[in-house]
Amino acid sequence: MILTLLTDFGAGDPYVASIKGVILKINPRARMIDIAHDLPPHQIRSAAWILNCFWKFYPLGTVHLAVVDPGVGGSRRAIIVTKKGHVFVGPDNGIFSYLYDSDFSVYEIKNSKYTLKKVSDTFHGRDIFAPVAAHISKGVKVEEIGKPIIDPVRLQIPQPVVTPQDIQGSIIYIDHFGNLITNIKRELFENVCGDGPVEIVVKNKRIKEISASYDQNPPGSLLAIWGSESTLEISANLSSAAKLLRIDKIDYDEVKIFIRKEGKR
Amino acid sequence: MILTLLTDFGAGDPYVASIKGVILKINPRARMIDIAHDLPPHQIRSAAWILNCFWKFYPLGTVHLAVVDPGVGGSRRAIIVTKKGHVFVGPDNGIFSYLYDSDFSVYEIKNSKYTLKKVSDTFHGRDIFAPVAAHISKGVKVEEIGKPIIDPVRLQIPQPVVTPQDIQGSIIYIDHFGNLITNIKRELFENVCGDGPVEIVVKNKRIKEISASYDQNPPGSLLAIWGSESTLEISANLSSAAKLLRIDKIDYDEVKIFIRKEGKR
Amino acid sequence: MILTLLTDFGAGDPYVASIKGVILKINPRARMIDIAHDLPPHQIRSAAWILNCFWKFYPLGTVHLAVVDPGVGGSRRAIIVTKKGHVFVGPDNGIFSYLYDSDFSVYEIKNSKYTLKKVSDTFHGRDIFAPVAAHISKGVKVEEIGKPIIDPVRLQIPQPVVTPQDIQGSIIYIDHFGNLITNIKRELFENVCGDGPVEIVVKNKRIKEISASYDQNPPGSLLAIWGSESTLEISANLSSAAKLLRIDKIDYDEVKIFIRKEGKR
Repeated sequence: MILTLLTDFGAGDPYVASIKGVILKINPRARMIDIAHDLPPHQIRSAAWILNCFWKFYPLGTVHLAVVDPGVGGSRRAIIVTKKGHVFVGPDNGIFSYLYDSDFSVYEIKNSKYTLKKVSDTFHGRDIFAPVAAHISKGVKVEEIGKPIIDPVRLQIPQPVVTPQDIQGSIIYIDHFGNLITNIKRELFENVCGDGPVEIVVKNKRIKEISASYDQNPPGSLLAIWGSESTLEISANLSSAAKLLRIDKIDYDEVKIFIRKEGKR
Repeated sequence: MILTLLTDFGAGDPYVASIKGVILKINPRARMIDIAHDLPPHQIRSAAWILNCFWKFYPLGTVHLAVVDPGVGGSRRAIIVTKKGHVFVGPDNGIFSYLYDSDFSVYEIKNSKYTLKKVSDTFHGRDIFAPVAAHISKGVKVEEIGKPIIDPVRLQIPQPVVTPQDIQGSIIYIDHFGNLITNIKRELFENVCGDGPVEIVVKNKRIKEISASYDQNPPGSLLAIWGSESTLEISANLSSAAKLLRIDKIDYDEVKIFIRKEGKR
Repeated sequence: MILTLLTDFGAGDPYVASIKGVILKINPRARMIDIAHDLPPHQIRSAAWILNCFWKFYPLGTVHLAVVDPGVGGSRRAIIVTKKGHVFVGPDNGIFSYLYDSDFSVYEIKNSKYTLKKVSDTFHGRDIFAPVAAHISKGVKVEEIGKPIIDPVRLQIPQPVVTPQDIQGSIIYIDHFGNLITNIKRELFENVCGDGPVEIVVKNKRIKEISASYDQNPPGSLLAIWGSESTLEISANLSSAAKLLRIDKIDYDEVKIFIRKEGKR
C-alpha cells in the first residue's frame, strides 16, 4: 500500500527518519513515497497547495501523511480526511483546506490504540500521525480510529476578483524556481477574456501576452504562462520571477496580479 | 531487508545515487530508506545525534549505513557495529558514539571480498560501506566481513552538571527549525527539581517555565519544552530560537543552558 | 523494475510528487529511486555530469528519468536514449551528452498513446517523460514509443589540453562540499607526467602534490586528490575549495587548472 509523506521536518534532521521507522514497524509492506520535507517551516498554506497539486495523480487507496504542525501539543485536533478513495492524515490546521470542496469526510483521531504508547509534546508526526497512517495502510478502518467532525479548520484561500476591466488575482505559492503561482484559472480567464488581447500587470511591470513556452522570451525576462495546474504563473526564462520582482518566497500577500483586457484601461 | 542511508553527501550531487546503485546491484531486494543527506558537511557529531534518535524505531534486522567521513582515504578504520538486532556500517570516527553504552559489538571491516574491486581515495561510501551493508542485508554474517575490535573512536559527548542551585546543560544539536536540543533529560530534571518552580536561562535570556506546547507562547517568543527525545529544548513559537539567540547552527559549544531552581539564585 | 529520478524540481515543491504519482498509477510495481532533485535550476551540464557518474552502478534494465528542462513547451525534442542495457528518458537539450560516445541509440518520443492525455506547457516531466518512463519500465518497447534520430543535442564538454610543460584542465562540476571536479583523468595524467614531480596551479595558488587522503593536509588547506570518477579534484580538508578560491558553484567557466611538470616552468 502506498503511503506518501509531506512534512516541513527537513531533509537534514532525524524527524522524517523516525516517522519512517514507526511506519515500517507497524506495516513492513508500506511503500513510502517522499513528497517533500524541505517546505518552509510552519507554512501551512504552502503545504496545502502542494497537497492539492499531487494527490490526484496517485492510485486509489493511497494514504497521504501531511504534517506541518506548529500547533503540536496544543488544542488543535488530529484528523483524518477521506476523499475519492484517498485518505489523508495530519493536524487540523487548514493543511487539507483544498480538499474541502465536495465529496469529503473528516474524522478526529480518538482511538489511542493506534498511536504510540508514549506521546511527546512536540512530535505528533511520529507519535500519532505516522502510526495512524500506517494502521490505515494496513487496512484498519478510518471509523475505527476517529469520530466524524463537521467543522475542520479552513484556510482563507484568496479568490480572484473579476471587474469589467480586468481579473485581479493573488499569489498562492512561489516555487523554488521563483515562479509565482496565482489563483487565476485558465477556465475563468477564457470565460472572461475570450480570445481578446490582454496585458498582465504585476508590481507595475507589464507583460504583453501569455506565452506558450519559457524560451519564447529572452533569457532573464518576465513572462506569463499557464502552469501545470492550469493557473496563471508569472515566470522568467532561465531566471526567477520572484527575484526579479523582489517578492519574498513566504510573505507575498500584498502582491496583486492583474489581467487587463486591452483597450479597457 | 531494510537498509537506511544517512550521509552528508547532499541531495543535489551524484554520490547518494551511486551508493544506491551499488546496493541494488548486490541486493536487488534491499528496501532502501533515505534518512538524511543534507547534513552539514563533515559534522560527525550531528550525524551521531541523528542516528541516536531514529534507529530504535526501525524493525529488528535493519542495516543502517551512516557515512560522514572527512577522514576517508586516511588511517581511520571502516567498521560495523551490532546492537540489539540492528547493524550499523560506517567509518570509525565517532559517528556511532551514542551506541557505545551497553550491548554492542564493533568489528573492523577486513574482508575485501565484500567491497568493490577498485576502491577510490575519496569515496568509501560507495566503494566499501555500501557494498558491505548490501551484503549484510543479504544475509552475510558480520563475522565473515570483519574482526572484533574493542577501541572504537568515541566522541566527547558533553554531560549535564548538577549543582545545589541548578542543572547546567549543553546544546547537542540544532535542527532546521532552529530548536536547540540540550543534553538535559527529563528524568534527571524530575529527580533534581521535582515539582518546584524553575527558570531556564540561556545567553542571559530568562524563560519562566517549561511549556507543554509551542502555541502557549506568543509568536516569536522564546520557550522551553520537552522535546521528542525527552530532553529539554529551547524553541520559539513559529520562529527560530537559534536565530533569536544568534547561535550558530554548527558552532555552539560555548553556549550553556541553566535550569535554576526558583529561590536558589 | 528500477526507475531512477533526477530533476531540478526541488525537494520542497509539488513537482517530484506528481511525477511519482503518475509513474505509480501506470506501473504500481516500479521501484523508484530518488537520485537528486535539488540541482541548481536549469543547469543542464550539472545534471549531465551527475548522470554520467551514477548510471553505470545500476542494474541492467534500469530506466533513468532525467529532467532539467528550461526549454519545456518550446521546440526542443523529447527523447529516449538506450545504452548498454539502460534506458534514459528526458529532454533533448544535452543532458545525455556523456552517453553519446559509443554504443548508444536515440529516439524521439512520438507516440502520444504513452503520454498523459492533457499535456501542459510547463511540466513535461509529469505529462510526457514520467508516463513514457513508466511504460518502458513495464515492458513497452522503446521502438513502439519513439522514432530513431541521429542528431541529438550535445553539450560542449571541455577537453584538457596537453603542452610540453603542463596539462591544462577545466572544472566540470562543483559539488556541495565545494570540491572542484576537473576534466583531467588519472590515465591521461599518468601517460603525460609518469611518476615525475608535479605542481598543481589554480587561480595562482600552488598545490605541491596530489594527496592520497584529505587528512594528509592541515584543516582548511587546499589540496589535489584523485576523485571518485578518477579525475583530478581540487579540495580542502574539512573545508570548501570553492569558497577558499572564491569560485562560484555555477559560473566557473573561466577557471583553469594546470598540472605543471616540475622543472618545466
